[in-house]
Amino acid sequence: MFSKILIANRGEIAVRIIRACRELGIRTVAVYSEADREAFHAELADEAICIGPAKASDSYLNVQQILSAAIVTKAEAIHTGFGFLSENSRFAEMCEECQIKFIGPNSQTIDEMGNKIHARQLMIDAKVPVIPGSEGVLKTMDEALTLAEEIGYPVMLKAAAGGGGKGIRKVPSPKELASLFSSAQQEAQAAFGNGDMYMEKIIYPARHIEVQILGDEYGSIVHLGERDCSLQRNNQKVLEESPSVALSTSDRAYVGELAVKAAEAVKYQNAGTIEFLRDEAGRFYFMEMNTRIQVEHPVTEMVTGVDIVKKQIEIADGQPLNLEQADISFTGHAIECRINAENPAFHFAPSPGKITNLLLPSGGMGLRVDSAMYSGYTIPPYYDSMIAKIIVHGENRFEALMKMQRALGELLTEGVQTNAEFQMDLISHPNVIAGDYTTAFLQEDFLPNWQPED
Amino acid sequence: MFSKILIANRGEIAVRIIRACRELGIRTVAVYSEADREAFHAELADEAICIGPAKASDSYLNVQQILSAAIVTKAEAIHTGFGFLSENSRFAEMCEECQIKFIGPNSQTIDEMGNKIHARQLMIDAKVPVIPGSEGVLKTMDEALTLAEEIGYPVMLKAAAGGGGKGIRKVPSPKELASLFSSAQQEAQAAFGNGDMYMEKIIYPARHIEVQILGDEYGSIVHLGERDCSLQRNNQKVLEESPSVALSTSDRAYVGELAVKAAEAVKYQNAGTIEFLRDEAGRFYFMEMNTRIQVEHPVTEMVTGVDIVKKQIEIADGQPLNLEQADISFTGHAIECRINAENPAFHFAPSPGKITNLLLPSGGMGLRVDSAMYSGYTIPPYYDSMIAKIIVHGENRFEALMKMQRALGELLTEGVQTNAEFQMDLISHPNVIAGDYTTAFLQEDFLPNWQPED
Repeated sequence: MFSKILIANRGEIAVRIIRACRELGIRTVAVYSEADREAFHAELADEAICIGPAKASDSYLNVQQILSAAIVTKAEAIHTGFGFLSENSRFAEMCEECQIKFIGPNSQTIDEMGNKIHARQLMIDAKVPVIPGSEGVLKTMDEALTLAEEIGYPVMLKAAAGGGGKGIRKVPSPKELASLFSSAQQEAQAAFGNGDMYMEKIIYPARHIEVQILGDEYGSIVHLGERDCSLQRNNQKVLEESPSVALSTSDRAYVGELAVKAAEAVKYQNAGTIEFLRDEAGRFYFMEMNTRIQVEHPVTEMVTGVDIVKKQIEIADGQPLNLEQADISFTGHAIECRINAENPAFHFAPSPGKITNLLLPSGGMGLRVDSAMYSGYTIPPYYDSMIAKIIVHGENRFEALMKMQRALGELLTEGVQTNAEFQMDLISHPNVIAGDYTTAFLQEDFLPNWQPED
Repeated sequence: MFSKILIANRGEIAVRIIRACRELGIRTVAVYSEADREAFHAELADEAICIGPAKASDSYLNVQQILSAAIVTKAEAIHTGFGFLSENSRFAEMCEECQIKFIGPNSQTIDEMGNKIHARQLMIDAKVPVIPGSEGVLKTMDEALTLAEEIGYPVMLKAAAGGGGKGIRKVPSPKELASLFSSAQQEAQAAFGNGDMYMEKIIYPARHIEVQILGDEYGSIVHLGERDCSLQRNNQKVLEESPSVALSTSDRAYVGELAVKAAEAVKYQNAGTIEFLRDEAGRFYFMEMNTRIQVEHPVTEMVTGVDIVKKQIEIADGQPLNLEQADISFTGHAIECRINAENPAFHFAPSPGKITNLLLPSGGMGLRVDSAMYSGYTIPPYYDSMIAKIIVHGENRFEALMKMQRALGELLTEGVQTNAEFQMDLISHPNVIAGDYTTAFLQEDFLPNWQPED
């Protein structure tokens, strides 16, 4: 087994990974920016190295600095968590070149899945249903116009190299197509150095259903069931749960098999997620594959008992999965609420600053809080506003909801604003209690009627 | 279901019960002494009532005040946790008289099990093996001398009404018997108003194996497996785990059946624990029954997934168990370390005072911390020194031990001394890692060789 791992990330996911390493008896190296000198992940790791200024491009995205840190500390592997370098195939390749194990799939898989046009084609070949749309790159405006007529407006234009909402345009009618196409293309070219575009039908409202996958280096692939992440604001997930109440037993088996088929098509190694949309008629469409650990992985851990981060490390170490699909059983119901330092009453504006008094919910059965906060910690303004994840596990969904209410009620973060009250109101909404929501619910039904307390 | 419950306790167990109530949608009333005005349990409950001065006899043992608080707040039930009034049959009776549900067995059962001579006799009648010793009350000194010869010295003299180590004497040889007998008897008479004495063989070293029981008002009784609580100092449990590594599968089935038989003998209702000693030849002996929730109940919750406190409330509410023995399955391994505010390097002297900076371990899978602490909280000197319980659950015992190491390493309680380092050294000891320990280990092997860091 690895004796030392470098964690190329910050915040709760870095802490989560350090904790998993510690439980595996592996030493850890944290890297931190100048803005993160007081960060908990840097404190918790066995070693910590400053890798540059606050700006992520100078530190957490600074490939040279991070590789140097790994070489200097003799780290044998690097875990990139999510965001930052986690889906950067060039970084994975450089790790390989430096004989440092990148904890994730190989660089080729990251590449294949990172190019959304390529991923679509792979899925079509593997007979995994994809969202109706273009075959390959859209070459001409005429092709785009013809296809859009076929699909029916509105349609979505997307960049092949897309990510972070860049190079993506909703096209309401033919007269806007040309201008939106060229602006999206220019944006993609500037952001990714790749202006390839494709078109998809808009599946909306839908359920966002994703399936957690584990694959080892010997061709074994299993799924760990689905997560329902339909509660989103601006394409950002807000609350996730497993299992999805929208699925029947046969739906669940079907989407699990689809996900395994998709992973097999790329001989997937390590942990990954296949994201699907399920339309109102109950049809599933492949959306994309995330070749990394996801924010919402804990809900799957709670219902399966499988520690996904430990599995990632073991797989990267060349160990066989030792898990067959039949070994994986699902118990109870888990829900995660993302806690962000933001002000929902003021356009969800980020609310960085010093936490003068902190009380995290704890205790009792089936409660887990993944966070990197402590009393007196100052949340820097440079990074993502997510500061904690509250995860609950109940015998059933009702118990999980009650437990989440209890937990949110206990959370105290004096000094900064959070979305805790927003989350409390969300889980208390009749539609959420009933499990009756789609990707449209949060923005179209809930938010317009939401009254934050003064 | 009850709409409001009063919790007649303090500290982590009061908080644990309030959290369970909240998850069941039940309102809570906390009671607190003048020394506990800032206590977390008083803060967390929906209502809180001061019941008297710091001294427990004036507050947490003040039956009149507590019943008045329940009546004034219209609480329909009282949960007494452990310690204080939890095994006071007179209090249970008074609750019954006031038409307030006492969450626990009825007063007659508490009485029967509280009188150790009576409990012994009940077990003998039920064919549950008891520790060799006297039948009924020891009436004369001659009878005591004859019996001690039969058993073999040293023997143990115990008060029928015993508890808290009072009225108990180890008798090394015949010449000390008379004087120890009368001093123990006087002590028991003074402490409990009952000077009845009995004698037992000393089973030492042994494994302390206890079995968690649940029984409903309709005669259903199940067990939730065993806990091994052999790691003790001065008869106080220090670390508990489930399952016990000392037991074979058939041992486990046997002691589970014994426990159910013991509970059936008294038509036991609610949660209880049957404590056994297992001698080095592998024989089990009934020691006593605790008619309340126990400190170490979480290890059982972690391996069974059954929330024992919620079950207590549901049973008290008259709900059937809805659990058959075959429904109860056991997953993985759980360990609990008790964290006390004390100085192990100085005779474990209590270390009350203000916690100037607190960091409780959290996050990741299978970790639970039950506590009533917060940053800035002042631990009062009047009560038990236990301030937190760290409970871990792993796929196997090795993972649980690694997780406990990780958790203990994260704990930070600036301002007060704790036994965390002592616990860390204990779980790192080869015997504990191997599961090779008895009730003698901690005091005879571990402590004499333990070197606290400066």
